[in-house]
Amino acid sequence: MIEPQQQPGRLVATYRLRCPTYDAAKEVARDIAREQTLEVPPGVVSAELEGRLLGRVDGITPRAADGFDAQVSYGLEVTGTELLQVVNVAYGNVSLMNDVRLVDLSLPDEVLEALPGPRYGLEGLRDMVGARGGRPLISAAIKPIGRTYEELAGVAATFARAGVDAIKDDHGLVDQSPAPFLERVTVVANAVAEANAETGGRTAYFPNVTGPVDQLGSRLDHVIATGCPGVMVCPSLMGLDVMRSIASGPRPLAIMAHPTHSQTGPCRTEGIAPEVLYGTLYRAAGADIVIYVNAGGRFAWPVEQCEAINARLRAPLGRIRTAAPAPAGGVKDADAGSWFERYGPDTMLLIGGSLLAQQDILGATRRLVEAAVAATPVGVQP
Amino acid sequence: MIEPQQQPGRLVATYRLRCPTYDAAKEVARDIAREQTLEVPPGVVSAELEGRLLGRVDGITPRAADGFDAQVSYGLEVTGTELLQVVNVAYGNVSLMNDVRLVDLSLPDEVLEALPGPRYGLEGLRDMVGARGGRPLISAAIKPIGRTYEELAGVAATFARAGVDAIKDDHGLVDQSPAPFLERVTVVANAVAEANAETGGRTAYFPNVTGPVDQLGSRLDHVIATGCPGVMVCPSLMGLDVMRSIASGPRPLAIMAHPTHSQTGPCRTEGIAPEVLYGTLYRAAGADIVIYVNAGGRFAWPVEQCEAINARLRAPLGRIRTAAPAPAGGVKDADAGSWFERYGPDTMLLIGGSLLAQQDILGATRRLVEAAVAATPVGVQP
Repeated sequence: MIEPQQQPGRLVATYRLRCPTYDAAKEVARDIAREQTLEVPPGVVSAELEGRLLGRVDGITPRAADGFDAQVSYGLEVTGTELLQVVNVAYGNVSLMNDVRLVDLSLPDEVLEALPGPRYGLEGLRDMVGARGGRPLISAAIKPIGRTYEELAGVAATFARAGVDAIKDDHGLVDQSPAPFLERVTVVANAVAEANAETGGRTAYFPNVTGPVDQLGSRLDHVIATGCPGVMVCPSLMGLDVMRSIASGPRPLAIMAHPTHSQTGPCRTEGIAPEVLYGTLYRAAGADIVIYVNAGGRFAWPVEQCEAINARLRAPLGRIRTAAPAPAGGVKDADAGSWFERYGPDTMLLIGGSLLAQQDILGATRRLVEAAVAATPVGVQP
Repeated sequence: MIEPQQQPGRLVATYRLRCPTYDAAKEVARDIAREQTLEVPPGVVSAELEGRLLGRVDGITPRAADGFDAQVSYGLEVTGTELLQVVNVAYGNVSLMNDVRLVDLSLPDEVLEALPGPRYGLEGLRDMVGARGGRPLISAAIKPIGRTYEELAGVAATFARAGVDAIKDDHGLVDQSPAPFLERVTVVANAVAEANAETGGRTAYFPNVTGPVDQLGSRLDHVIATGCPGVMVCPSLMGLDVMRSIASGPRPLAIMAHPTHSQTGPCRTEGIAPEVLYGTLYRAAGADIVIYVNAGGRFAWPVEQCEAINARLRAPLGRIRTAAPAPAGGVKDADAGSWFERYGPDTMLLIGGSLLAQQDILGATRRLVEAAVAATPVGVQP
């Protein structure tokens, strides 16, 4: 992959094109540069405007097996600094072209300054949950749909007693009758608070606020009223800018981003590459924690894909804080140690079903927390 | 394709699976049914809950060349009737699986009752713009970025004088300095109103309100204050539920939906098939007009794909009104007649660049409007 240099005042996008020849790739790249900016045939506007606003094809690099990478850059006059126009220019109408995939994205300083990024970030989360020594973090999910809010609160209390750092709602828990939003959040938050009071722990509960946008404000207020320090949101369902608005807004909530409906995967010929979507866009839009589907679980994502996401979430990105990668989706609790070894301590492992499937959930969760403590970097006092 | 029967109280989704064997397809379909509902291993919850809530594999049909179509249905207890949970169940986590494409979707009556659908619909739009005789509709786009709002207003006035039914902002026009949202909408709306007063016409201007969600309410109020009857929104950028909230809300605005960033295309192995995304989801969520990229333009979509979208937008869908398909994306004004012949009168042809590229924009637009009038169905008084 081309590693695009950040260009002053320009958004730099790299598109992977499935094309037979260099000349064909050059033509597609020029079509993209026009489609994403002026979107009128040559000659409609002045040469001055064309020169100023048309996307610029900066380079085309052949790839071994599957076509070409075309780097196209766009001026700030086109993108502005608002999140949705940035996405619109990077991957708007061209998302309707087959064989065009967005594989890299570099945001100019002006955009990075305007976007919130994580309110807490990885280090802020460690302070929030009292995770000392730079150890990896543990999150557990309460599920499934169909359980009542009292049952879910019981599971949450067990997780909190075992000392997990974070508890999240299943993303399918919205407002169904066995566990309606208001009652669920109240009762689960209370159960977690009581467990914290017993143990002296600081487990954080992230309720799922995904739902009708016109109810979001009142849901966030309810989350604040119950004392929860954060929320879970599904940005690709609700809208990326909805997450941005929470991260930029007045309520001091951390955000856990869930990847449902994000329509991405490794090695596809269209879409946004997972590391770009999660590692750049979700993070810049305000996710403190980014859940993705881990290798070796229910989804067939290669471990290199997961490592690319981790790397993006932790890489320098202007003034924007680093976020916690949260590999999930069928991770087995017994494998936690080897994942910490592979991914390093700046990781929040998210485990759901494999804990819930056990006879002794409390014991299994305690062992998981011990594995995280044992993975504290050497030389640091845990 | 399987044509799924609507099932009482169940959402029916058809997934196209690229799979070597029937048995492999059956296994993937069962994985999907679990992933989209309980999302815990067998044995975690009671057999009663599994029976009640697990997705049901209703059938698997082999396809000639590329795998199998699996029909999976979900109970109302899982989906609820809120738009985002419906999408989450139909194509949530499975959007992260390669080789799984959503190719059909049937919504139960309960969901159709809860979703707004178009406020005006195709017939309401005809009344709004005074298009008599059931003729096709004409829309034109003001563009590009970089032009000032006065320049854009001049173009809009020309289109209105020529009698187009609708004028839309380019979807790249957001709040950039040459044409900031507030000034642009005020000045363009005035120019269109003046032209309407001159001609006795009723051209409708649809300003693009896509942008920060926390500014949406004030933008909609401004649109209402300037007397515009509708707005353009990009639902796949802003969030499908944002469009639903406008369609369900108190402001009597028609909605034109733009497909930017909708990440769909014909013949892909992942994603949501265009006719399902636009024809069912965009429509049910409230789009009166659905723009898509037409065959023969800048995008390589086959005409059969376009016809499938048209058919879905016009098909019965509970109490939900029909919407106007708006083929666009490099449609040439000279071809309008043949498109009307092919697509029929229940169509709004959207033309941008090919009008703007002409010396005599007024004359070319007038000829286009005449072509629409000439396409009035036989036997109807135009």
